[in-house]
Order: sequence, then structure tokens, then C-alpha cells
Amino acid sequence: MSYFSPSIEKLIESFERLPSIGNKTAIRLAFYMLNASKEETDNFIKSIQDAKNNLKMCSKCYNISDTDPCNICSDAKRDATKICVVEDVKDLVAIERIHEYNGLYHVLHGSISPMDGIGPDDIKIKELLTRLMDGNVKEVILATNPKVEGEATAMYISKLIKPMGIKATRLAHGIPVGGDLEYTDEFTLGKAFEGRTEL
Amino acid sequence: MSYFSPSIEKLIESFERLPSIGNKTAIRLAFYMLNASKEETDNFIKSIQDAKNNLKMCSKCYNISDTDPCNICSDAKRDATKICVVEDVKDLVAIERIHEYNGLYHVLHGSISPMDGIGPDDIKIKELLTRLMDGNVKEVILATNPKVEGEATAMYISKLIKPMGIKATRLAHGIPVGGDLEYTDEFTLGKAFEGRTEL
Repeated sequence: MSYFSPSIEKLIESFERLPSIGNKTAIRLAFYMLNASKEETDNFIKSIQDAKNNLKMCSKCYNISDTDPCNICSDAKRDATKICVVEDVKDLVAIERIHEYNGLYHVLHGSISPMDGIGPDDIKIKELLTRLMDGNVKEVILATNPKVEGEATAMYISKLIKPMGIKATRLAHGIPVGGDLEYTDEFTLGKAFEGRTEL
Repeated sequence: MSYFSPSIEKLIESFERLPSIGNKTAIRLAFYMLNASKEETDNFIKSIQDAKNNLKMCSKCYNISDTDPCNICSDAKRDATKICVVEDVKDLVAIERIHEYNGLYHVLHGSISPMDGIGPDDIKIKELLTRLMDGNVKEVILATNPKVEGEATAMYISKLIKPMGIKATRLAHGIPVGGDLEYTDEFTLGKAFEGRTEL
């Protein structure tokens, strides 16, 4: 049973449907919206509508962008011999933030996950292979997440591209910088051992 | 510097402006919106627009409601001799949830707070006094928050209504049910002592 007026209740439900928003936060957000100026709510609504209307997938790398090709694909200073394969746009942004990588990207929009009924054809793998056909790419960095699905996706792709003479690499596993050996899980510690480097 | 496309960036900023939403949650919400169906985003936007357009203040108690008077003021089964004064609509809903109180409400929409430049005339105190003029009300329960501003507001109102022969009451302070004496702050414990009841 609800104690709020129907319109407030619907607004709270709308916010509650969003990820990581519980009932208490939804109530707080709904009342914030009610008390906000018309300009503020209009701006909020416009930002959603603009994003939905303006954004498109880059037809080369499947990044989501206001332009097609996206600003990364259309940047001539980028090294076009490297493609970093990520599961989604948030991963691409995470890599851009480190200012280390100057190549191109390919966004898969998911990972192979038979449990969820997602096969290789449901993500942008074919599109990656088409990109590799022109022979310019020397290295594909498989930066899918270090989870079962991400590992399987990386393995699957590496098997397809190795016969094409393209180097397939994977990000290193190891102890996080500033991390603590004592609290590192055994798999990570095992990988850190495997990948140890000479000083 | 931003690594997202302008439209995504604006959407993230829009979410970040909401209370209790940090940068990471804003990014999650923005991408949720981007991936949501058109129907889902349209419904979300409509719930905000409907709430802003349909909701009005009840002209009696200043509750926010789809109808005027609100469903509480227009309920003939409610005890019109009692008015519970609260700071905002969320407090009203909190009291409705306990199913104990059957009187009417008066929403002040704030509390007296000289630090924030909010005086008695900036909240609905005059409107409360006008409601009390008809002489029907026997008790005013001052359920403002037990903070400096709420206490000051309760004191201010009680001084105005006592000369009218109306009983002014305040919610009891004490140890929360299931609480622990050891962890109760000294002010609350002091109030709990003061308000001790005979068994």
C-alpha cells in the first residue's frame, strides 16, 4: 500500500527501476525532482532525449558517439595498427583514462555467455574480423574482463585471428598497485607468479 | 577532460546533479538510459512530466497531492480535532506508515533556520494559525525533526498556539526500540531518563 499521491508514487517507481537505486534513494530523487525548478527538470529531460536521439554507434569500432566515425576512429594521430577489443564503452573510457594507449578500439557490446544465451554472433566479433581483413592491423589487445565470459571471448577471438598472422595479446594479471599480498586471492596471486618479470 | 561523447557526458552530468548520485552511479545510470528501450525512457520522462504537471499543494494542509484538498483532508473519517505539524511530505508519509495516527496534518515545507535565512514567514506557519482560528482543533502535535531547527520551530509554534487554548504536544524522545543503551548518545539517554514512565 502506498501513502504517496499516484503521480509521486509513479515517479518513485520510475526511479526505483533504475540500477543501484533503492526505495529510499528513489523517494529522495522523486522529491528532488518535484522541488526542482521547471528549467532544471526540462534540462534533465532534454539531456536524456538528446542522448537517445544524437548518439549512434560508430560504424567502424562500435563505440557510442555523437559522430560516425567516432572521434577516436577519425583521429589520424592514432596508431591504426593496434586494436584494443573491449566489452563495452565504459571499458574503453577506463583505458582512455590511463593515457597510455594510442591505438584504436573495437567494442564488442557484450561477451560470449552461453548461460545467458549470448553466442559469438550476438556480439561484434564478425565486424572485428571484417576490420582485420585489410591487413593493416598488427596487434589485437583482448581487453575483455578477467571473468569466465571475458576469458572465453578472448580465447575464441584469439583462435580466429592467430591464423591471420595478427598478434593477439591479453592484459596482464597481477597484484594491484598498492595492493597487499596477504589479501590477494589465490587465482590473482597465481597469475602474478606466472607473469613475474626479471628486475 | 572527458572521454565520453558530448551527449553522454551531458547525460552523466545530469544524473550527477541529483542528490546522493556520485560519478560512478551517474555513469551507470547514463548507460542504462542509453541501452533502455524507447518506451522505457519515454515512460521515465512522462512520470517526471506528469508529477510536475499534476501535483499541487493541498490548499488546507499543504501536502503535495494529485487532488486539492488532498486525500487526507477530504477523508471524513479522519479526526479533525488533531493536527500533526511536519516539516515535509516525507515526514507525513513516515507517520502514515505507522497506522497509529488518525488526525489531519499540516506541512510546513521547512523549519525556522536563521543560518539559512529561513524565518517564520518563509514556512507555512501563518497558514497553520489560520486553520486553527475556527476553534475545532484541540491538539497540535509538533512533529518537526529533533534537531536545532525543528526544536526551534516547535517552540515558536507552541508559544503562538498555547494562548489560543489549544494543546501543543511533541513526540517523545528516547532509546529506539531494539536499541542499545551502551550506544545511545548522551542527549537521547538524558531525554529517555526525563521521559521515563511508571510500570
